[in-house]
Amino acid sequence: MGKIDNHIYVIFGASGDLTKRKLMPALYSLYVQGLLPERFALLGASRTSFTNEAFRDSIRISLNEFNESDDFSKIEDFIAKIFYTPIEFDVLSSYHSLNNQLNVLRESFKIGGNIFFYLSTPPHLYGIIPGMLAEAGLNKQDDGWKRIIIEKPFGNDLESANKLKKLLLETWEENQIYRIDHYLGKETVQNLLVTRFSNGIFEPLWNRNYIHHVEITSAESIGVEKRGGYYETSGALRDMIQNHLLQVAAITAMEPPSSVEPVAIRNEILKVLQSLRPIKKEDVKKNVIRGQYLSSTIKGQKIIGYREEEGVSPDSNTETFAAIKFYIDNWRWGGVPFYIRTGKRLPTRVTEVVIHFRSTPHFLFSQDLNNNQLVIRIQPDEGILLKFGMKTPGAGFEVQTVNMDFHYSDISELRIPSAYERLIYDSLKGDSTLFARSEEVIEAWKFLMPILESWKNDPEIPLYGYPAGTWGPENADELIDGNEFAWRYPCKNLSDDGIYCEL
Amino acid sequence: MGKIDNHIYVIFGASGDLTKRKLMPALYSLYVQGLLPERFALLGASRTSFTNEAFRDSIRISLNEFNESDDFSKIEDFIAKIFYTPIEFDVLSSYHSLNNQLNVLRESFKIGGNIFFYLSTPPHLYGIIPGMLAEAGLNKQDDGWKRIIIEKPFGNDLESANKLKKLLLETWEENQIYRIDHYLGKETVQNLLVTRFSNGIFEPLWNRNYIHHVEITSAESIGVEKRGGYYETSGALRDMIQNHLLQVAAITAMEPPSSVEPVAIRNEILKVLQSLRPIKKEDVKKNVIRGQYLSSTIKGQKIIGYREEEGVSPDSNTETFAAIKFYIDNWRWGGVPFYIRTGKRLPTRVTEVVIHFRSTPHFLFSQDLNNNQLVIRIQPDEGILLKFGMKTPGAGFEVQTVNMDFHYSDISELRIPSAYERLIYDSLKGDSTLFARSEEVIEAWKFLMPILESWKNDPEIPLYGYPAGTWGPENADELIDGNEFAWRYPCKNLSDDGIYCEL
Repeated sequence: MGKIDNHIYVIFGASGDLTKRKLMPALYSLYVQGLLPERFALLGASRTSFTNEAFRDSIRISLNEFNESDDFSKIEDFIAKIFYTPIEFDVLSSYHSLNNQLNVLRESFKIGGNIFFYLSTPPHLYGIIPGMLAEAGLNKQDDGWKRIIIEKPFGNDLESANKLKKLLLETWEENQIYRIDHYLGKETVQNLLVTRFSNGIFEPLWNRNYIHHVEITSAESIGVEKRGGYYETSGALRDMIQNHLLQVAAITAMEPPSSVEPVAIRNEILKVLQSLRPIKKEDVKKNVIRGQYLSSTIKGQKIIGYREEEGVSPDSNTETFAAIKFYIDNWRWGGVPFYIRTGKRLPTRVTEVVIHFRSTPHFLFSQDLNNNQLVIRIQPDEGILLKFGMKTPGAGFEVQTVNMDFHYSDISELRIPSAYERLIYDSLKGDSTLFARSEEVIEAWKFLMPILESWKNDPEIPLYGYPAGTWGPENADELIDGNEFAWRYPCKNLSDDGIYCEL
Repeated sequence: MGKIDNHIYVIFGASGDLTKRKLMPALYSLYVQGLLPERFALLGASRTSFTNEAFRDSIRISLNEFNESDDFSKIEDFIAKIFYTPIEFDVLSSYHSLNNQLNVLRESFKIGGNIFFYLSTPPHLYGIIPGMLAEAGLNKQDDGWKRIIIEKPFGNDLESANKLKKLLLETWEENQIYRIDHYLGKETVQNLLVTRFSNGIFEPLWNRNYIHHVEITSAESIGVEKRGGYYETSGALRDMIQNHLLQVAAITAMEPPSSVEPVAIRNEILKVLQSLRPIKKEDVKKNVIRGQYLSSTIKGQKIIGYREEEGVSPDSNTETFAAIKFYIDNWRWGGVPFYIRTGKRLPTRVTEVVIHFRSTPHFLFSQDLNNNQLVIRIQPDEGILLKFGMKTPGAGFEVQTVNMDFHYSDISELRIPSAYERLIYDSLKGDSTLFARSEEVIEAWKFLMPILESWKNDPEIPLYGYPAGTWGPENADELIDGNEFAWRYPCKNLSDDGIYCEL
């Protein structure tokens, strides 16, 4: 860790949306903070034919639009470091000319041999580009480090993930590969680690003795927008649970690591994923609920259903909502149900982990059974909320549930870096803590395969419809045992049948 | 419990300050809320000769000044229920004429035989009035209940407390006697019970395994004002610790009661007081610190020292500050030090219980050893504050201590009744939960006697001076073991040598 070495940053898929909206603003923000090294260059590459100037023009426009820092004064300095080269991703000679281009930059800027390759491309290229780079000798680290960042998804099922893993490891070392999961770049996800392991008061409670169940909700209010074509090949389970939410669950559930070294933390995350109790095919119907949003009216505005979206088949069975109940079979969590719920066209955009604590062993006062909750809000309004019982002022001993909260925005002098900024910075330092290791990805796929296969093959498992703007199919409520407990609903239903959203 | 019976409320010492400032406003507030019964009368009694009208006039004036409700419209209705009779406290015939007076009121208002006697008198009368009432037959409950409320102090040491107890119990039953401790009437003190016993998350932590030490601070910024004469016979230990603060400590430390019935709660409080480890005379010097405020300048204003106060001897050894370290020898608290600190002319007025939790068993991050504290604020701004570690936004894993808090004022629609209002209401209902039982008072005296005796007899135990507006003698800091821990200072020093107070 420590200082960042001089390097060239190569972005494949440089003409795409992610580059404009996330990667360039993140790199520029690092630049204005003086976190990038003195000598570095940025090389965009994609199929499109651009001159350097044309590419710089497009970046200039997007930086002015998506700048995350307050500082606009250094945009021209930054842009002077940007270059462009067109590339045919499946043609080896293209990589040789890329190499030539890199050598020119290395010489003119006096940069050593450190190169970062960011694969902001369609997923099928994750198997092709690293191999081609290797064939062109661009994986060799004798003159400096070579690293690649791969975006999600890492495979589409267990088989393809294993195949991709094998392919990558033929020519690259595991420690050269950074599988980005932008969820892990979020402050509040990292704060989960700190909250759990820096406080004497939380860790004693963090186990089966005192926790009744754990809920992870990640809701989006938007639909699939223009990504219908991609989403048809994915669905909520692959798009959110396989990567982001199982990682969040693992960080919530992990044992204390022996240190904060990346390998120590990632070992503990892996152990959780290895301890997931497999869901048997015959239990899928009971323990996993899938749904698809239907057309609806929200605040008087007509919203189309998923099957009417652009690029979506009119008889699509792709789930836009998934809720799952599962167990972690280890000493800490034996018998404690975990619930994950995610969906599109829900009433609000919110991601949170809710620890539902057990109630007191004896009820002295009449009180709410579920009055002790720790809510770790990941987005929006990142922060932490503790619900607990206090005395209602006045005679007698009435209990009411009150909230104490802490908002990250309260430490207002500190800017919260974007997830991409944090992750790019870490990867440049060679810190892989917040990146998924291939074993983790494989374990997550292993866990989800029975569900994916049952959904595909078992016609008896229903795909429930839910009106856009509601909290998904009502059947998801029945996942949670007992009458006393329920999902936390950060706001009510948004569709005109329900109530408007209030956080 | 439940509804309040028709009754006559007799206040002895009716011409005093407490009657005007606290008792009448509390009774009036109950009246406007409709909590007093349909038929009741209020009879003031003291040495002064008043007509009913003159007494009513004085109450009218003070009610307008000290009214705690928003409602001024019912003052005349309330005052119409007030009567007055002069009394010679040590003359039996006076009580016979009081009895006659009561009979007249009973008949004209058609009130049964329920009578409450509130002794708002100098303490030496606590032994005289109840005996006289009994001689006049006013302790007999055959025609309705008879109850007495006694203000503090209950005795001046173990011997006098035992004597007073014996005297009272000769003619009255324990359950007829309400020893008022206005601290126990405070919402936040009662809320301690609710916070501890209605939350699954607090009770598992509430023991020697997770609590490092407990601190109870009760600071006053004022001096002895006009009460120098009384204070000379008392001092901080008798005035605050013997009653209020040992009760607060006992509620903080008590085992869960079997129910919220008064006797169940009071049994548990008594058990704590019985478990206090006696402080040996030879340990008084080490474990108890006494101080007396000296003249000083606060915000440019000269403040006189205690020995210059009116009614105070120029060579007085009365302590205006006391800090004490002690242990509760039971299974829950073995080895956990408790600290109580109280004083006059400290930088601010604040009373709070601070639970200092143990740190994590291993430090993954560089963090403050004492970053987990639960502050239960009794006054002012009643509420609760949790200090804990969270991640500093940005790269790496820096920990910073942040606060979550809950202020009673946030439940703003609910008015918090004054301590006297709550206690008078409870006593009228016959609920003795928040009153001290004679065994409790005796146990507290037992615990404090070695200190009082050593202070009196051992010339080697210093009385430290401290400048008015500071947190007492610095020697009090050394009571707390180790370098890492310290008293919580809700604000800094107020004297001109220090820093102004910021809460």
